Amino acid sequence: MARNIVISIDAMGGDAGPAAVIGGMVKSANKNEEIRYIVHGNEAELRPLIEKQRTLDGIVEIRHCDDVISMTEKPSRAMRSGKGSSMWGTLQTVENGDATVAVSCGNTGALMAISMLRLRRAPGVDRPAIAVLWPSRGPAGHNIVLDVGADIRAEARDLVQYAIMGTEYARLGLDLALPRVGLLNVGTEEHKGRAALHEAAELLESHAANPDVGMEFVGFVEGSDIGTGNVDVVVTDGFTGNVALKTAEATATLIRGFLREAMEHTIFSRIGALFALTSLRRLQKRVDPRRINGGVFLGLNGAVVKSHGSADATGVSAAIKLAFRLAQNGFSQKVADRVANAAKPEAHPK
Amino acid sequence: MARNIVISIDAMGGDAGPAAVIGGMVKSANKNEEIRYIVHGNEAELRPLIEKQRTLDGIVEIRHCDDVISMTEKPSRAMRSGKGSSMWGTLQTVENGDATVAVSCGNTGALMAISMLRLRRAPGVDRPAIAVLWPSRGPAGHNIVLDVGADIRAEARDLVQYAIMGTEYARLGLDLALPRVGLLNVGTEEHKGRAALHEAAELLESHAANPDVGMEFVGFVEGSDIGTGNVDVVVTDGFTGNVALKTAEATATLIRGFLREAMEHTIFSRIGALFALTSLRRLQKRVDPRRINGGVFLGLNGAVVKSHGSADATGVSAAIKLAFRLAQNGFSQKVADRVANAAKPEAHPK
Repeated sequence: MARNIVISIDAMGGDAGPAAVIGGMVKSANKNEEIRYIVHGNEAELRPLIEKQRTLDGIVEIRHCDDVISMTEKPSRAMRSGKGSSMWGTLQTVENGDATVAVSCGNTGALMAISMLRLRRAPGVDRPAIAVLWPSRGPAGHNIVLDVGADIRAEARDLVQYAIMGTEYARLGLDLALPRVGLLNVGTEEHKGRAALHEAAELLESHAANPDVGMEFVGFVEGSDIGTGNVDVVVTDGFTGNVALKTAEATATLIRGFLREAMEHTIFSRIGALFALTSLRRLQKRVDPRRINGGVFLGLNGAVVKSHGSADATGVSAAIKLAFRLAQNGFSQKVADRVANAAKPEAHPK
Repeated sequence: MARNIVISIDAMGGDAGPAAVIGGMVKSANKNEEIRYIVHGNEAELRPLIEKQRTLDGIVEIRHCDDVISMTEKPSRAMRSGKGSSMWGTLQTVENGDATVAVSCGNTGALMAISMLRLRRAPGVDRPAIAVLWPSRGPAGHNIVLDVGADIRAEARDLVQYAIMGTEYARLGLDLALPRVGLLNVGTEEHKGRAALHEAAELLESHAANPDVGMEFVGFVEGSDIGTGNVDVVVTDGFTGNVALKTAEATATLIRGFLREAMEHTIFSRIGALFALTSLRRLQKRVDPRRINGGVFLGLNGAVVKSHGSADATGVSAAIKLAFRLAQNGFSQKVADRVANAAKPEAHPK
């Protein structure tokens, strides 16, 4: 099989350094025979790491750059002076068509800013969004939640576009034919919440009435619905979504810690933990954020996957797997088409 | 010991009905010899339930009312036509001084609306807030998070008042001498987030500089800081706080479900679970929302504890315990004093 899906990778972002990124590339290349890489970073640092890995033989091109954008860099500064950086190079390679999709563990704000500069917004999109997969009891095992932090504001029109883009992501990423979309609010009653939410709900109601759109609008949902089977795509502004995501991660970490302490508390529970080891590992795998690693930037002329800043090789590999799937499906073009169609008057027959 | 702390209880709100409320009253009265109750609801329904309980002999006064405010009633309607309801009576009893604190499992929006009508806002408070205790790794075992849903909007001035009120709650409720306060944002860098947050941060910086205020301001915190030892009081608007709270509850439920499934998956894990039973129960207790049940309304002339709508006897008892503690400490007066002092120019010597 030809290795014909090219992924552009920023090897220098992230807290764990280039070794974790290369490790993730190896894991993915072992499992997937269609992947090739163009990797961006300091060649002197990257070449020895890559040459050690036989799996990567002949499937990696290194593009050297001198600079790295730090995790604390302001997005505005990254846009002005990020030109010689690994992140910049990673996105430029998608812009000029050498690769189909970009992956970076770097600074989210800077990555979004440079993505908007290099790839530009898809026609008709005002605010791109970051979407994440969220463990769930739903049919697909995950919900999609967006925006989790591209923009702290969102007008009604933006929320509608998030719904359209998130629906397409659910269709391609979760194999759902008719994704169910909910607007995140503080209650499911019609009178609750902010004005922009009410306006968005009305727009989505009429948008989803067209069967060609392939979306079921379920109305308002609450924080308690995320991760349940009640909804597939949860739409919110980037401020609320970011807080919800980080709060859920913190809650999972807290409970994991409590569980570990509980299991180590007595000799009986230690024996119990030994017996239950495999099952506890299965649990760990199910709620492990590394395995569902990867926020996707929606609404750009090109696909970008943001891996967690602290991702290790397993996390990077999960992000690469997601990037591959999106590239294979022509994802960003399909999302752009959906948004463009929604803007046409004939898309609203009623 | 005299039973001299009187708690006014709405027996008719809540999904579990009066039996759960009476059950909670029994549990609390068994443990606490200073409590008396004035209970509001349908006398014909309540009297037999109460007379069955020897613990409640002579310490309960029933005040009959015909109506109940439903869980789906709009707050505006509850204010207009809620006069004959158990919720109304519960708050009126605090208003006229017969009881020190009110407890209800009913409709949150209606409870806040009627509380504002009967008890009125404390001098200088624009927006009352709902504060919850959140399991945490911090020194007190809990964080305080507010507002979790009294008002979907919050200006800078409101956020500052939430900080002041939450600090007082942490001092009295968690025994912290110098509570650490953080503003919930999407990043800890100074340039991130909404304008109101920046303004509030500046105001809190100068407010906390006065040692008499007894507050340490730690700046911006993120969703990932809630439940950690990094902060004691997390301040946010009621929209974001409500979503964060419900998302965390849903995450805890999801993980508990996954854990149960993992432990039942094989014969080995079932044996393991038997060995670890006591420890798993300890974990359950630690993350059980029923045991930390009770949102506190801050910024009113009187104390109100909102118990979870689905609270059982254990949950109601936890809410009563919290109400008792607040009543015993003269809580609402102390909060009002702090807010009033903050408004005086001499409270800001710098």
